[in-house]
Amino acid sequence: MNTGTDDGKNFLFVHGAWHAAAHWNEVTERLAAMGHRAFAIDLPGSGLNAAYPQSYLRNDFTALASEVSPLKDVHLADYVDAIGAQLDRMARHGQVTLVGHSFGGLAITLAAEARPDLIGRLVYLTAYVPVPNLPNGVALASLPEGQSSISGAILIGDPRVTGAQRINPRDADPAYVEKGRQALYNDVSTQTYLRFAVYCNPDLPVAVAFDNAAGTQQRWGRIPRTFIRCTEDHTIPLALQDRMIAEADAVTPDNTFEVRSLASSHSSFASMPDRLAEVLSRS
Amino acid sequence: MNTGTDDGKNFLFVHGAWHAAAHWNEVTERLAAMGHRAFAIDLPGSGLNAAYPQSYLRNDFTALASEVSPLKDVHLADYVDAIGAQLDRMARHGQVTLVGHSFGGLAITLAAEARPDLIGRLVYLTAYVPVPNLPNGVALASLPEGQSSISGAILIGDPRVTGAQRINPRDADPAYVEKGRQALYNDVSTQTYLRFAVYCNPDLPVAVAFDNAAGTQQRWGRIPRTFIRCTEDHTIPLALQDRMIAEADAVTPDNTFEVRSLASSHSSFASMPDRLAEVLSRS
Repeated sequence: MNTGTDDGKNFLFVHGAWHAAAHWNEVTERLAAMGHRAFAIDLPGSGLNAAYPQSYLRNDFTALASEVSPLKDVHLADYVDAIGAQLDRMARHGQVTLVGHSFGGLAITLAAEARPDLIGRLVYLTAYVPVPNLPNGVALASLPEGQSSISGAILIGDPRVTGAQRINPRDADPAYVEKGRQALYNDVSTQTYLRFAVYCNPDLPVAVAFDNAAGTQQRWGRIPRTFIRCTEDHTIPLALQDRMIAEADAVTPDNTFEVRSLASSHSSFASMPDRLAEVLSRS
Repeated sequence: MNTGTDDGKNFLFVHGAWHAAAHWNEVTERLAAMGHRAFAIDLPGSGLNAAYPQSYLRNDFTALASEVSPLKDVHLADYVDAIGAQLDRMARHGQVTLVGHSFGGLAITLAAEARPDLIGRLVYLTAYVPVPNLPNGVALASLPEGQSSISGAILIGDPRVTGAQRINPRDADPAYVEKGRQALYNDVSTQTYLRFAVYCNPDLPVAVAFDNAAGTQQRWGRIPRTFIRCTEDHTIPLALQDRMIAEADAVTPDNTFEVRSLASSHSSFASMPDRLAEVLSRS
């Protein structure tokens, strides 16, 4: 019945911290138009799977600074279980191109380590690449190349109390909004930023940054992979992206990253969905 | 490269009032797992294409009752343009199964009237079916069979002032939340309802209910179509769904609805995504 599906790819998208499936919609729209299958998952605790602090739902922003997160016991293994289940089902119809953004890089690496056979290519969109000697989010984010990151400025509360790296997507104070835009979406207007920010979730569970996510040469390391550098990124600075590319390539000298670059902020799915879809389609 | 794609369908989903692409994610997840291509659009003014009242972004719910909607000039033709553009692109890879929920039924009918050649099947999921003698949302919602609808209880403000049928997805008052759950999601828990409600948009532009959306026998009327009845629906009562099926079938006696039923509220994408995906996959 359908025509032209033979060259269609099978994309599975994994969002980063505070984000959700919804944020990929302008990219999946374009990939669907090109004849690809493209699905973006809501990780546990995000999007339709969210669990919100009560104070957030009540718009009580004073209480929000100290309420314990309903996601405090979520671990990277929960993300990997969710990705793995969908990967397994989608791969019955062809190997999957698994795309991770930002923190999503930890989850796709660990998912790839578990089921390398299901994945045709890994795509890191300005994403963390954990390897044996830098095995988790904290180790990677603490590298000297990451010190110019400004995303810490949007955090509220004390993670030791809340159990989460918490932001407040409902805080409309212009100074706070501008800090978020500068950190995450510095190449779109405030109006566009707000449309994406409204769909963000407040909590990233603390544990996911500490869990071991390292890919090994034997499993993760044999999958072809692409890194999409975002050259104007203020959250994962370009120097850190390049360091992670180099570290990963040192683990797998015979299977190095295919590298692409976009002159984009951290959020190219918002600022240049056409270009991003094109790069992905050709990956 | 891929296998098993030959029997994959090409789905385009159109959300209803106050909803967005994000709300379909549990259904598109299952369809992607079955090997279909499935994309849900954000209509103009919704989801990533939203424009919010300033008072809503500021959480000033007193001002929200009277602020003029930034969507007051949006018409059904804008929805149809957006659907038509994506339909046109997706149909290059096979005819599209175009699915509309609730108010989305108006938009898919008018889109089908414009481009019947691109559509393999229309699916009305407890959705409005405008026909020449009942050509718009107001005419259909005013039928005696619709009088038991309770969704009016969640409206705030005066549409003659705001230009919108407005709700407040950020109002956490338990009585208001329960009214929304009863009207739209009466077969899920309050916790699940909130996960979907948080992703709703406050404004449905008034004009879209008044614009002519009628399908004609000659164009819309020659496309095969399915109606999925939701038997526990408190927003579009079952009697109104059945009246619309009968009115449409009277327009096209040689091409009547294929009818399916789900024992669901207005929002089967939330309460029974597995069953809904199965019905869609077989449609």
